[in-house]
Amino acid sequence: MRVLLVGAGGVGTAITRIAARRSFFEALVVADYDPARADAAVAALDGDDRFHAERVDAGDEAAVADLLARHRCDVLLNATDPRFVMPLFRAARTTGATYVDMAMSLSRPHPDRPYEECGVRLGDAQFAEAGDWAAAGALALVGMGVEPGLSDVFARYAADELFDEIEEIGIRDGANLTVEGHDFAPSFNIWTTIEECLNPPVVYEADRGWFTTAPFSEPEVFDFPEGIGPVECVNVEHEEVLLVPRWVKARRVTFKYGLGNAFIETLKTLHLLGLDRTAPVTVPSASGPVSVSPRDVVAACLPDPATLGELMHGKTCAGTWVRGVKDGAPREVYLYHVVDNQWSMAEYGSQAVVWQTAVNPVVALELLTTGAWSGAGVLGPEAFPPRPFLDLLTAYGSPWGQREQ
Amino acid sequence: MRVLLVGAGGVGTAITRIAARRSFFEALVVADYDPARADAAVAALDGDDRFHAERVDAGDEAAVADLLARHRCDVLLNATDPRFVMPLFRAARTTGATYVDMAMSLSRPHPDRPYEECGVRLGDAQFAEAGDWAAAGALALVGMGVEPGLSDVFARYAADELFDEIEEIGIRDGANLTVEGHDFAPSFNIWTTIEECLNPPVVYEADRGWFTTAPFSEPEVFDFPEGIGPVECVNVEHEEVLLVPRWVKARRVTFKYGLGNAFIETLKTLHLLGLDRTAPVTVPSASGPVSVSPRDVVAACLPDPATLGELMHGKTCAGTWVRGVKDGAPREVYLYHVVDNQWSMAEYGSQAVVWQTAVNPVVALELLTTGAWSGAGVLGPEAFPPRPFLDLLTAYGSPWGQREQ
Repeated sequence: MRVLLVGAGGVGTAITRIAARRSFFEALVVADYDPARADAAVAALDGDDRFHAERVDAGDEAAVADLLARHRCDVLLNATDPRFVMPLFRAARTTGATYVDMAMSLSRPHPDRPYEECGVRLGDAQFAEAGDWAAAGALALVGMGVEPGLSDVFARYAADELFDEIEEIGIRDGANLTVEGHDFAPSFNIWTTIEECLNPPVVYEADRGWFTTAPFSEPEVFDFPEGIGPVECVNVEHEEVLLVPRWVKARRVTFKYGLGNAFIETLKTLHLLGLDRTAPVTVPSASGPVSVSPRDVVAACLPDPATLGELMHGKTCAGTWVRGVKDGAPREVYLYHVVDNQWSMAEYGSQAVVWQTAVNPVVALELLTTGAWSGAGVLGPEAFPPRPFLDLLTAYGSPWGQREQ
Repeated sequence: MRVLLVGAGGVGTAITRIAARRSFFEALVVADYDPARADAAVAALDGDDRFHAERVDAGDEAAVADLLARHRCDVLLNATDPRFVMPLFRAARTTGATYVDMAMSLSRPHPDRPYEECGVRLGDAQFAEAGDWAAAGALALVGMGVEPGLSDVFARYAADELFDEIEEIGIRDGANLTVEGHDFAPSFNIWTTIEECLNPPVVYEADRGWFTTAPFSEPEVFDFPEGIGPVECVNVEHEEVLLVPRWVKARRVTFKYGLGNAFIETLKTLHLLGLDRTAPVTVPSASGPVSVSPRDVVAACLPDPATLGELMHGKTCAGTWVRGVKDGAPREVYLYHVVDNQWSMAEYGSQAVVWQTAVNPVVALELLTTGAWSGAGVLGPEAFPPRPFLDLLTAYGSPWGQREQ
């Protein structure tokens, strides 16, 4: 396997560190818009000559296709932000490469009833091209990070091995991370966090299909394992709600993010002030009026989460809560994966949230190499057998857990 | 009197509309960085040939001095934001013009103990040059809007006519303004509001002098007159605290702004995220990386308060609460000035907060023309006899009130 990794930010860099310990691939080309980031990621790998740095604009489909061809890559792994999903997805299709991403093509709210009906859904643009991929016998494995990704594998595992019938699948994500010296320092890319949290959350119900609610709906306190404890969670737009029902039968699917009350209030304020907008505003500058996206300015004012690992303390938990029936009796299970920042920093020099996202696509690539996972079309992680994935994740030194509740 | 008005924003434009109804001056030159704003202000006055539009950069002291000389102006009225106080103040001194402003030179927090001690205080840079003004027999009348301005006149009036001894003078500002169709739309320049509210508030006590506290300190609910009702007020950095004790004897002087809880939380969030900062950050844009001030971006995302008059409802109140002793008995009085937005829009086409700021410097200029007010040096409004001011304000159609409490 020869991999083109596009994006050498926090997650991309962690992917190189995780992959460097594995032997399943022949080459991994690290490409970024900023060549210094790609160079730094490769330089940190102590001369492992399977890795090469390149510069590429992820929005330039032709340039990406060219780079895939030039390095004879058979897999494109997308570690950029979701704005670049479509050009990368299409560049992979053009060149015949397998495509893997960790977030899907962006949604657009319903023009008239944004908080009741879906407009364009997450991944719609990708699924619209599923026929082409299937016809070509090519694979796009979409949403293959931790959430979506591992959370979808858990959903399929619950359906295969733990339940006869599933009432509800609820992805629940929470953490107790703090950052020394920073009163406010999100542990994940703020651009994506705003996108996820302020878009109308999507919910699936078997008899209604997909529908939306107002942001931050259905608050609940979920008790996270391994000492994290109770965190206030709210509905958030997330890929699992779009992916899980395509392959797993459940009466209801939700995603709730343990943002905590203070963070929710902060996001509401950004929205109130229009600072979440991506459309440019005109602002004076020393070199005359310039046009900038307010959301980019918010991101520029905050520390880069990938650089905060040394100052971070605590654990992050991703998981899938399932309620249903097994052998005639009601059952409720939370399948989860916890990463302690202290461990991920010591082992990989990567902060917990970024490392937890990065490990899953590497496991998936290894399963595709060995043939344990195979398929054609645009497929989510729940389209594949879950057991080999969960076993290999444990073999990577990062076990998962199961709590009956 | 020939006046150079620098700044044709909301307050500057309202000044032209108020002045146009008075006969005390011979010429009023309206100058702005944006010539379209100056032109629009003059064009709205139906051919009153005392008004002329000019373009000027308020930060360019030499250009301002040149403009004063060219139009033979004997008064410079500064209606820009406080960043431009010093170049305008100095341009007036150079040319021998009287200088009037509505906000004073900016403060700088104490480097080590910002929430305990003053660093550079509001107006310090101007008072440092007071000797030059006095020696030249020239007048700089500083802080002559509504707050500071009318509030200082009230303080002097209380000392002259209502009290034998004053325990505390507390400026209290509150409103019940709402803006149709906007969940968040400050009624005054957000740049200045952030500056005022996030700088360490200053308090004066006779036995301690001036000192600072943490932002939003000493919350209290103050009951505002004429139907506005109770509003949560907190300490805010404001000129009155620096001006009043120089001319009026009181044991304590404070300024509390009726921001309301929601607005206070919004400002705290902006501060937490670093979006209140004026130092530029680098942000991507369609034309490559650019440097912008986050606070300018916040301002650009919000509607221009001067344009909101038609959508605004409610009243704004500025006033001075005084507690002390008269004829051996304790007394407590609130002297206030309320403007109803519906009235100011109907009468002047100016929204209430902007109009209330604008009327006071026009009254002051008229008193300087008639000789009812005269002086030399750098003087606050409380350095002059209050009664002529209050009577002329009433004659302008905008009476003030007194509430015994």
